[in-house]
Amino acid sequence: MTDFKQSLAANAQAVGEILNELLTSGDAPEHRLIDAMRYTTLSSGKRVRPFLVTASAALFNVAHQSSLRAAAAIEMMHCYSLVHDDLPAMDDDVLRRGRPTCHIKFDEATAILAGDALLTKAFEVLAAPSTHADPQVRADLVLALARAAGHAGMVGGQMLDLVAENIELDMPEITRLQRMKTGKLIFVSCEAGAILGKASADKRQNLKHYAYDIGLAFQIADDLLDVEGREEQVGKKTGKDAVAGKATFVSFLGVEQARKQATMLTKQAIGHLDMFGDKAEPLRDLAHFIVNRSS
Amino acid sequence: MTDFKQSLAANAQAVGEILNELLTSGDAPEHRLIDAMRYTTLSSGKRVRPFLVTASAALFNVAHQSSLRAAAAIEMMHCYSLVHDDLPAMDDDVLRRGRPTCHIKFDEATAILAGDALLTKAFEVLAAPSTHADPQVRADLVLALARAAGHAGMVGGQMLDLVAENIELDMPEITRLQRMKTGKLIFVSCEAGAILGKASADKRQNLKHYAYDIGLAFQIADDLLDVEGREEQVGKKTGKDAVAGKATFVSFLGVEQARKQATMLTKQAIGHLDMFGDKAEPLRDLAHFIVNRSS
Repeated sequence: MTDFKQSLAANAQAVGEILNELLTSGDAPEHRLIDAMRYTTLSSGKRVRPFLVTASAALFNVAHQSSLRAAAAIEMMHCYSLVHDDLPAMDDDVLRRGRPTCHIKFDEATAILAGDALLTKAFEVLAAPSTHADPQVRADLVLALARAAGHAGMVGGQMLDLVAENIELDMPEITRLQRMKTGKLIFVSCEAGAILGKASADKRQNLKHYAYDIGLAFQIADDLLDVEGREEQVGKKTGKDAVAGKATFVSFLGVEQARKQATMLTKQAIGHLDMFGDKAEPLRDLAHFIVNRSS
Repeated sequence: MTDFKQSLAANAQAVGEILNELLTSGDAPEHRLIDAMRYTTLSSGKRVRPFLVTASAALFNVAHQSSLRAAAAIEMMHCYSLVHDDLPAMDDDVLRRGRPTCHIKFDEATAILAGDALLTKAFEVLAAPSTHADPQVRADLVLALARAAGHAGMVGGQMLDLVAENIELDMPEITRLQRMKTGKLIFVSCEAGAILGKASADKRQNLKHYAYDIGLAFQIADDLLDVEGREEQVGKKTGKDAVAGKATFVSFLGVEQARKQATMLTKQAIGHLDMFGDKAEPLRDLAHFIVNRSS
């Protein structure tokens, strides 16, 4: 696991360098916008989604530069969603990864615009020839990310999450919500690797099942952290779900059962990787990591 | 001009039908999101940008379905920018096209998410095979729109506009701001037609010059409407720029000189269309229309 943590950190570093290049600050009066985009993306997250992109792409021997750029694009998408979710009109969070959220550090207008610009930049990066020589691959990446991130995916999940504060969700509905809000971006991280590698249908299918399972496991682990984690370790306010009366996997299943469910999903996810042999070791490690993480 | 107004209305109607198809409401709890996206895009705007897309594409005999879908995508991009610009943290507007703005009709969180989802959907539409059979065309459309709409384009222009409330801009800076904030989306509307039509470099160049000139003319006309227009006709609050102490073309040049400048730019824009002959008549009509409009 120490080796894995090193390789996760090395990948996060490499993606950070690409993000640093892609978001170059200028002298223009609007440099405030780039500053906010950089503040939001260049802090030291674990970069789980970028790791999924590069580890999935590595199954198909994709050039490192291609997978790192796709990884950076998906990380921008993830970061924009955090910035907008943290806004006063949404979750109203002041702390993220142990630092002031974007609208606290800058201001609300800047945070809205920085989110918009990151979302837009993600597609710019995917569509650019330097991400992949084949335009079919680039168009497919854009399409996959847009579907995962839009109204039928991440944004729809966030809307459902807000609506759910006033309605009682049952277990299938919580699962649907989380598949949209968190799962689809995790799914598309693996899918991006398959698209870049022009993977066969059966390999794509297995990777898809893996992604769906770890997506849910990831969310359950997140819910557990909200209940059990210490704020300074998690880097954001904990105990929020209970205060908001939000239905989560943990509120529904209880802590013990939720932990068992996460472990079962991890095992199941790893089962889908058999056909990839040793090459899939990083993806197996990641599956273990996300349910055992402490932040 | 009556013929032109009819053809502008017919095009707006056709784009509206595509938008209606693309944004189908479901039964899911998150239908609120789609409702807000529809509220924002299906109201009866003039749809100037969509007209530019289809009229530019018509120069190169692009299939109508292709240009209408690209037009719908760019209209979504435009509409999202209005929704976010109207937010309390930004321009804080309650009226748009004579109706309550999105965050007034729904709420702030929904407006933020509806904007995010429209922005994302624009790229989904452009990248989808039904927009054009050639993936190179689709990837190029995505790239062009992302560049026009992102931190170096529309969003950057909006940031600059906010920053400009505290600094004194000179004429070149106002021009730069407006080229980013309004001009780039108008430019990419014409460029989309050229990309869809695989236009030659010289035709692209002429169309580009046309687009830049009408983009500025459009903005000057907008500034004039803010000074001279009646609120019920313009469909939004007028006189706002003066109250905000914003430097505009009109505050800088004065009404008379601004009007002259707009007329000069229109003439110059039309001059760039010579090589396209009669086929460019709708683009000539549009150039006249945008400086003479009353809303």
